[in-house]
Amino acid sequence: MTTATYTVKGMTCGHCVSSVKEEVGEVAGVTSVEVDLASGLLTVGGDGPIDPAKIVAAVEEAGYEVVNPS
Amino acid sequence: MTTATYTVKGMTCGHCVSSVKEEVGEVAGVTSVEVDLASGLLTVGGDGPIDPAKIVAAVEEAGYEVVNPS
Repeated sequence: MTTATYTVKGMTCGHCVSSVKEEVGEVAGVTSVEVDLASGLLTVGGDGPIDPAKIVAAVEEAGYEVVNPS
Repeated sequence: MTTATYTVKGMTCGHCVSSVKEEVGEVAGVTSVEVDLASGLLTVGGDGPIDPAKIVAAVEEAGYEVVNPS
């Protein structure tokens, strides 16, 4: 089990949170996605390592931006 | 053709606009729905008179509020 956190910019409401959860949840290897709207904190869990670039791309696909992606 | 305008409070993004359009568009007699996110202005068109209470209820169903409903 691995966990990685990201900060997402631009989410304004629950619909935005749902969009991010949906896109990130579709990334291969992702087993859990948590999003905190107020802080923009995105926590991604998986059974093994997940390419951060794929998470960043999924967030962008949803229409938002990862701040300072690692 | 009739047109009525309302001001909707609480919409923050395009998803919110879509939710309002969807719910208001389902009200009997409504033929067009326009929403301006920045101002909150909701413009509802129909072939005949539409009960304002039904529009207010549809906006609430979407999760938002009509300011000073007429």
